[in-house]
Amino acid sequence: MAKIITMGEIMLRLSTPGFQKFIQSDSFDVNYGGGEANVAVSLANYGHDAYFVSKVPNNPIGESAIAALRKYNVNCDYVAKGGERLGIYYLETGASMRASNVVYDRAHSSIAEATVADFDFDAIFEGADWFHFTGITPAISDIAAEVTEAALKAAKAKGITVSVDLNFRKKLWSSEKAQRIMSNLMQYVDVCIGNEEDAEKVLGFKPSGTDVTSGELELSGYQDIFKQMIDKFGFKYVISSLRESYSASDNGWSACIYDGKEFYHSRKYNVRIVDRVGGGDSFAGGLICGLAEGKDMKAALEFAVAASALKHTIPGDFNLVSRADVETLVGGDASGRVQR
Amino acid sequence: MAKIITMGEIMLRLSTPGFQKFIQSDSFDVNYGGGEANVAVSLANYGHDAYFVSKVPNNPIGESAIAALRKYNVNCDYVAKGGERLGIYYLETGASMRASNVVYDRAHSSIAEATVADFDFDAIFEGADWFHFTGITPAISDIAAEVTEAALKAAKAKGITVSVDLNFRKKLWSSEKAQRIMSNLMQYVDVCIGNEEDAEKVLGFKPSGTDVTSGELELSGYQDIFKQMIDKFGFKYVISSLRESYSASDNGWSACIYDGKEFYHSRKYNVRIVDRVGGGDSFAGGLICGLAEGKDMKAALEFAVAASALKHTIPGDFNLVSRADVETLVGGDASGRVQR
Amino acid sequence: MAKIITMGEIMLRLSTPGFQKFIQSDSFDVNYGGGEANVAVSLANYGHDAYFVSKVPNNPIGESAIAALRKYNVNCDYVAKGGERLGIYYLETGASMRASNVVYDRAHSSIAEATVADFDFDAIFEGADWFHFTGITPAISDIAAEVTEAALKAAKAKGITVSVDLNFRKKLWSSEKAQRIMSNLMQYVDVCIGNEEDAEKVLGFKPSGTDVTSGELELSGYQDIFKQMIDKFGFKYVISSLRESYSASDNGWSACIYDGKEFYHSRKYNVRIVDRVGGGDSFAGGLICGLAEGKDMKAALEFAVAASALKHTIPGDFNLVSRADVETLVGGDASGRVQR
Amino acid sequence: MAKIITMGEIMLRLSTPGFQKFIQSDSFDVNYGGGEANVAVSLANYGHDAYFVSKVPNNPIGESAIAALRKYNVNCDYVAKGGERLGIYYLETGASMRASNVVYDRAHSSIAEATVADFDFDAIFEGADWFHFTGITPAISDIAAEVTEAALKAAKAKGITVSVDLNFRKKLWSSEKAQRIMSNLMQYVDVCIGNEEDAEKVLGFKPSGTDVTSGELELSGYQDIFKQMIDKFGFKYVISSLRESYSASDNGWSACIYDGKEFYHSRKYNVRIVDRVGGGDSFAGGLICGLAEGKDMKAALEFAVAASALKHTIPGDFNLVSRADVETLVGGDASGRVQR
Amino acid sequence: MAKIITMGEIMLRLSTPGFQKFIQSDSFDVNYGGGEANVAVSLANYGHDAYFVSKVPNNPIGESAIAALRKYNVNCDYVAKGGERLGIYYLETGASMRASNVVYDRAHSSIAEATVADFDFDAIFEGADWFHFTGITPAISDIAAEVTEAALKAAKAKGITVSVDLNFRKKLWSSEKAQRIMSNLMQYVDVCIGNEEDAEKVLGFKPSGTDVTSGELELSGYQDIFKQMIDKFGFKYVISSLRESYSASDNGWSACIYDGKEFYHSRKYNVRIVDRVGGGDSFAGGLICGLAEGKDMKAALEFAVAASALKHTIPGDFNLVSRADVETLVGGDASGRVQR
Amino acid sequence: MAKIITMGEIMLRLSTPGFQKFIQSDSFDVNYGGGEANVAVSLANYGHDAYFVSKVPNNPIGESAIAALRKYNVNCDYVAKGGERLGIYYLETGASMRASNVVYDRAHSSIAEATVADFDFDAIFEGADWFHFTGITPAISDIAAEVTEAALKAAKAKGITVSVDLNFRKKLWSSEKAQRIMSNLMQYVDVCIGNEEDAEKVLGFKPSGTDVTSGELELSGYQDIFKQMIDKFGFKYVISSLRESYSASDNGWSACIYDGKEFYHSRKYNVRIVDRVGGGDSFAGGLICGLAEGKDMKAALEFAVAASALKHTIPGDFNLVSRADVETLVGGDASGRVQR
Repeated sequence: MAKIITMGEIMLRLSTPGFQKFIQSDSFDVNYGGGEANVAVSLANYGHDAYFVSKVPNNPIGESAIAALRKYNVNCDYVAKGGERLGIYYLETGASMRASNVVYDRAHSSIAEATVADFDFDAIFEGADWFHFTGITPAISDIAAEVTEAALKAAKAKGITVSVDLNFRKKLWSSEKAQRIMSNLMQYVDVCIGNEEDAEKVLGFKPSGTDVTSGELELSGYQDIFKQMIDKFGFKYVISSLRESYSASDNGWSACIYDGKEFYHSRKYNVRIVDRVGGGDSFAGGLICGLAEGKDMKAALEFAVAASALKHTIPGDFNLVSRADVETLVGGDASGRVQR
Repeated sequence: MAKIITMGEIMLRLSTPGFQKFIQSDSFDVNYGGGEANVAVSLANYGHDAYFVSKVPNNPIGESAIAALRKYNVNCDYVAKGGERLGIYYLETGASMRASNVVYDRAHSSIAEATVADFDFDAIFEGADWFHFTGITPAISDIAAEVTEAALKAAKAKGITVSVDLNFRKKLWSSEKAQRIMSNLMQYVDVCIGNEEDAEKVLGFKPSGTDVTSGELELSGYQDIFKQMIDKFGFKYVISSLRESYSASDNGWSACIYDGKEFYHSRKYNVRIVDRVGGGDSFAGGLICGLAEGKDMKAALEFAVAASALKHTIPGDFNLVSRADVETLVGGDASGRVQR
Repeated sequence: MAKIITMGEIMLRLSTPGFQKFIQSDSFDVNYGGGEANVAVSLANYGHDAYFVSKVPNNPIGESAIAALRKYNVNCDYVAKGGERLGIYYLETGASMRASNVVYDRAHSSIAEATVADFDFDAIFEGADWFHFTGITPAISDIAAEVTEAALKAAKAKGITVSVDLNFRKKLWSSEKAQRIMSNLMQYVDVCIGNEEDAEKVLGFKPSGTDVTSGELELSGYQDIFKQMIDKFGFKYVISSLRESYSASDNGWSACIYDGKEFYHSRKYNVRIVDRVGGGDSFAGGLICGLAEGKDMKAALEFAVAASALKHTIPGDFNLVSRADVETLVGGDASGRVQR
Repeated sequence: MAKIITMGEIMLRLSTPGFQKFIQSDSFDVNYGGGEANVAVSLANYGHDAYFVSKVPNNPIGESAIAALRKYNVNCDYVAKGGERLGIYYLETGASMRASNVVYDRAHSSIAEATVADFDFDAIFEGADWFHFTGITPAISDIAAEVTEAALKAAKAKGITVSVDLNFRKKLWSSEKAQRIMSNLMQYVDVCIGNEEDAEKVLGFKPSGTDVTSGELELSGYQDIFKQMIDKFGFKYVISSLRESYSASDNGWSACIYDGKEFYHSRKYNVRIVDRVGGGDSFAGGLICGLAEGKDMKAALEFAVAASALKHTIPGDFNLVSRADVETLVGGDASGRVQR
Repeated sequence: MAKIITMGEIMLRLSTPGFQKFIQSDSFDVNYGGGEANVAVSLANYGHDAYFVSKVPNNPIGESAIAALRKYNVNCDYVAKGGERLGIYYLETGASMRASNVVYDRAHSSIAEATVADFDFDAIFEGADWFHFTGITPAISDIAAEVTEAALKAAKAKGITVSVDLNFRKKLWSSEKAQRIMSNLMQYVDVCIGNEEDAEKVLGFKPSGTDVTSGELELSGYQDIFKQMIDKFGFKYVISSLRESYSASDNGWSACIYDGKEFYHSRKYNVRIVDRVGGGDSFAGGLICGLAEGKDMKAALEFAVAASALKHTIPGDFNLVSRADVETLVGGDASGRVQR
Repeated sequence: MAKIITMGEIMLRLSTPGFQKFIQSDSFDVNYGGGEANVAVSLANYGHDAYFVSKVPNNPIGESAIAALRKYNVNCDYVAKGGERLGIYYLETGASMRASNVVYDRAHSSIAEATVADFDFDAIFEGADWFHFTGITPAISDIAAEVTEAALKAAKAKGITVSVDLNFRKKLWSSEKAQRIMSNLMQYVDVCIGNEEDAEKVLGFKPSGTDVTSGELELSGYQDIFKQMIDKFGFKYVISSLRESYSASDNGWSACIYDGKEFYHSRKYNVRIVDRVGGGDSFAGGLICGLAEGKDMKAALEFAVAASALKHTIPGDFNLVSRADVETLVGGDASGRVQR
């Protein structure tokens, strides 16, 4: 099993039960999550030594966030304590043509104000095989972008494979700023994950003929874009999940990968959604799992797509399906028959 | 923003959670609702000055009903206090081919036994732009029918636009009685809303070729019926929502409108249902909103259909989606993609 | 109304709410159920005198299981008290391509260790019209198999109609042992219910061309198999429900019956699933109800299929839909329109 | 075990969870209860053949009420079906100096409008040992008072012991009307239960020196009152529970009994209250249990007091503690040590 | 009824259910509250025209806070919209010797960053009778202190009575800063509420012989302190609630008032606590209610103490007991007997 | 911080919410716990390296038990996987004079059937400072007693301090068998914890004048008993918690310790109980914490008593109060004032 490091923000997620609007609800379901933390949980769940690097406030809410990760076997020894607050996101789960609604309250969080001095990257990356980050972390503050680059340098200095999930968040930064910061960070990256919107907003590439709200996908433009990305940044693999939003309740879900030579489109699943937040993170987690274990790119992609399709049926940010469940689905049984 | 008056009954709704049958349930979800109250909430939610006129018992249950409306910005200054009880309806939410089941316990309610003396219609309608009622109010008791006509006369005396939602309830009165009472009240009405069953049972018109249980609709008969209705009662608009009940979980949802000259059928939505009670009321609310703001009849209808399609995804009787959400859907984005 | 005896195990069912995984859940929904008990509830619910014969521990958990049945009008006068424990099954309800997961903890239960001395079969079958058991009961222990045969002999001695639901459970016994025990018991059976897997694993018949995970069904093989079964065991009727597992959320549901002369395939329903556990038992309950009341085999089958299609929308093991609800669906109204 | 008949109303109880006020609550806990039904559950729970006679509406709410009783082994064969509605009471559970608040919505219930023709008293009382009613039943309507007297006559004609719990309800009738109706019914009564307020309001006797709001009790006046009651009505026993309301959270609880010769005051318990509704009914249930089994009056009283003290710790109207639990407390162990 | 203005912060309160620690809880109960908002709810609940002045973010969480106040009849027309976030406080409710634990996350809230330009004080105070604020508002930021003084000047310019609840919060500012800011604001105050700790930390007065953790109170020092406060600041009344913390579950609760001439100590209640947060605010609300209605200082104090004693039994920040409930308790009935 | 090993059973705890009886409840609260696991959580919570040694089934229920411990920082690397089932205990929480009721269903658990081969004691005890077990583990099966002795021998071979909590469980073994097995194991023990009942039933010593159900304690006999125990077994310390069961809601709680020279009785707390299960384990956890950190016996005892008094206010088996909370209480502040 590999030693895999992720770094980023963990937030308190407050969601309304039973499709309620915020104004109706007198209780919130409590979960903890965040792009990189979710990847760490996936990897720990498949048996890898997953480490999460972050900073949380030194209060019971910060401790609860760490406990939530530790419960799922994520090593939190390198989570710094201090700062002002744990970031929050509020979630109303949508249905049918009503979209899920996310309200962020993440400014001033401990990780957004952390500095390089909070982390001993030399110790963190000692013996590690893989480092994963997302485009969210450098977006949360200028200092977080600096910390991210410091981590990347340290990882590269030890020859560790680096993956990124571009994950553009328009409420955190502009496309212009994202491109300025992220283009620089791409020099450290081996494996680049990002959907069509990310490629455009974060790196400036635009696949032609894709209308993200129509639910229709055109694979035709992807290979060209992917090729340009590899040409420019030297990635080993470029990967995109492909979501077809029929509605908030039903999505098509597949992915494609390109290694500079071959372009591969996975099997597609039509998923009835329980909770789609964290779906992309579970895809990254599955992909890293597959690649880190030495699967070929097609097998890794199919594992990632099946894993993340299953995530859509699990409440909360974390993907908690077992490796065996993923492999059953990869093996072709999507019947959902009772196991007994 | 318009001042809009609605008058009718507000009930305590007791529903079983999680698709339980009544006999299984040891807790009931508590909501308050009723045809006209639901319309008032929609209108307040879009920013109009919505008033609800009714009578509730002078006890904590009556107060709770009022508080529920006030929370959503409905003005309850003209709700009288007194009488015996708040009406109740029990609800089992259905799924798939199992229909939702409603058990009414609404006899002897305060509003059913209210008299004209409970309401100062002159004050109520002062400065008002619109008055809306439904066929439920005159059905709940003979005295309620009298109160309804008194309200209509007062509204008309002030030149206020009047709308009705015919809403036939077979457990409250016979088709014969409905036709006798309602035909008389139609003289005060400008805008008439009612589906195919209402038109037949309440006013005696029957669209040909419609089988309400088959889920199939034939638009062909509607225009003729609408024309007859306008010929007879002089309505400015006749409108019907069009529900295709594929199952208790999935419905087709659209509407049509006729102004004596043009017949228009809206876009159709296929909705995955969370809670369809109040769907028709949210349609009326959206339509009144559109017409009162001076939208043309097509735009008003599309707003009403989109608003009420979204209502099907909200638990409880009230439609709590924002004007912006409705307009996004009217604008063509039904993808349900997460907003973040 | 008929007096109908069922015998088997009743278990405590502990299920996670809201599609949670076991590891996430800090509360379990409590239900009680088991193949034969579920059939008894169906029959009591349709108005028959349903008796359940079993053994439960003499503690509050055993008492709670009995109370759950008594609430639904099942006569428990012949449930023995004693032994070690009530069997448990843990349930995670699946969604989309994630299957429901059942973890059994049923060894050492009171009924698994009960003996013939615990039951006065002469009294139990006095005046009875029908006896139903499933392939689960003889599977839970060798002594339970003995008790089952003793019951069957007593029932046959009184000329009572006997039905079986083959219900193969691979976690309880091997196919070889199942065939050895069950083939012997078939001599007492008049009505044999079992799907394609049961027929193969329990009795050794294999319908050709059926792939249980693909969700596709081929009726072509069924009639031959059924004929062989009747030829070998002299059943009056052989019946199979036909489940097409599109996913854990959506199934096709129909059934076929054969009486040695005519093969009949029922109407098929596409069901949106709330809780599919107990679906097969509700089918058996509906079928026994129909046959015991003298319906012809087609009418009985349609009643059973409609009843069990509706069960898929009820949480818990028990089918609680009314006879009227079933008859409405048999009559062709699957629209799920609100009843009010 | 004795065959014991109770007759009265069963209501739907809707209570707010967690000490909420009605206006705060968006769910209600669902229980079913009523003075006589609660007594029947107690008696069934101790192993007696308890019958409940009433009328409930022929709808799922009425069925649910019956199922709730049947679950606890109360025979409901003589509950008539029909009429308009099931009575309701809303409950806010108090704490400290905030009293519990009950809002009744019980007018027009099926039992309030039932007639003698709904009940076959000859069959009902065949082989019965005891008949129990309360002062609530004749209070709910004039016709209910007639039905009560008819039942009493039939019971007496068969020589059955009759008990009453006077239970004055000022929201149902005036003291004057209560005295007029109840004084007549006392001719049929053998065992009369009632606290100090009941004795005064229902029968016109006033114990001196008791201030019901001060929480202080003076036993001195009770014996005189009891003697007058026996002199006037010929009761075999007169019994009163003695509640000292220190607060809504803590009460003192004891009782006294008089047989015309000896006056006995029981042990007193200080109870920390979970749910005090039904406390008096559980006292009546315990007392009838003791007397019907031939206990002497002191032993019966101690059993009743211990049983009802324990009831105060059980949520809902029904007393569900076992006979063994009661006997442990009668035996002197009030330590509440964990049983394991 | 008086027009009463309060100004301050409203926060989202997230509390664990059932005495859970944060780390255990997977849902939080949702309430909204804050010192001045809680006073406004009390006053609206007694029938006064209560206005709340604040600023909340222009998002659904801000809207939900306003809706919570509007539900309880507080006028929110002067709540500004904008800024960054709604402040939060997390609450673990204690029991026995375990204290309740509050974790604040209120920095950067909309009201903390609001400016004088957000409020039209001339309109706000037009026709008002009373203005109430607390020591929390000037503590949350320097600009909030400026806004507070601007409000006080505007109120005084219109001759409005001003009350303050000193409410020292050590996590918001030091005692030194509190004294510097608050001493200046006292020139505008007529009615000063504050307990022993507040008097010392906010204004620099120290009652002798009071040990706040011992639960013992010595009234002897209060009158002297109060006299000094009136001498220095010219208050019309000085008031302190007196809490004796026996434990987190049980408190003694009374209060004292001084008008420069007479010192009066109220009746004391021993309260079993359901939720003590907001207890002090309900005291202020009751006191302002009494004084604004012209009650003498003793009657106003007794009303306030009874009202706030009852608050301790209500979940959430708001006091929702009726005026009638308060008056019953003032009248001497603390028995908590069921009202029916 | 010390490395501390505990060994024993972890069970699934299924408890009814809100004081319900089992028969009433349609959901169970889910916790995991057991005597030694609870001690491990306490120690990890105070910052020690706590290891739990056990065996759980290789299924999701076993995994959930481990995750529950890992969440609270207990190292589970030495928990073996396999065997039949996870033991269960059902819990009804009592109130007032109604005792909590525990129903065990723990036979055939994985740990009860584990063998010495499941554990590498040499690795487990490498570098460890302390080993703790209870009298429950050897009681669950003969083989578990063997495993216990093997662990004790291995611990002693490495010179590790050993503590025991005698914890007699009459449903697991007789006093005779307990004495036979446990007397032998005492040779390995340094620190012996046990209340008066344990000392008698497990080791044969009887303190004079103690009536466990009366709630009265007499310290006079304890010192003599403790002296005898030290004389016979050479313990370094003998300790007993002292519970005074006033009722299931209120207990007195203190403890005494003896080291052969000095007998010390701690401060006593009167606790209002939320959940007393695990109270004794939290006492042992606090005591081991104190002694392992080198506190003197009085300080260790006061820490243990305060810690366990606080545990009575936490739902679930685990003590989750912080070291700081315990020290505040040791320091004398039991006021329960809100921390803010």
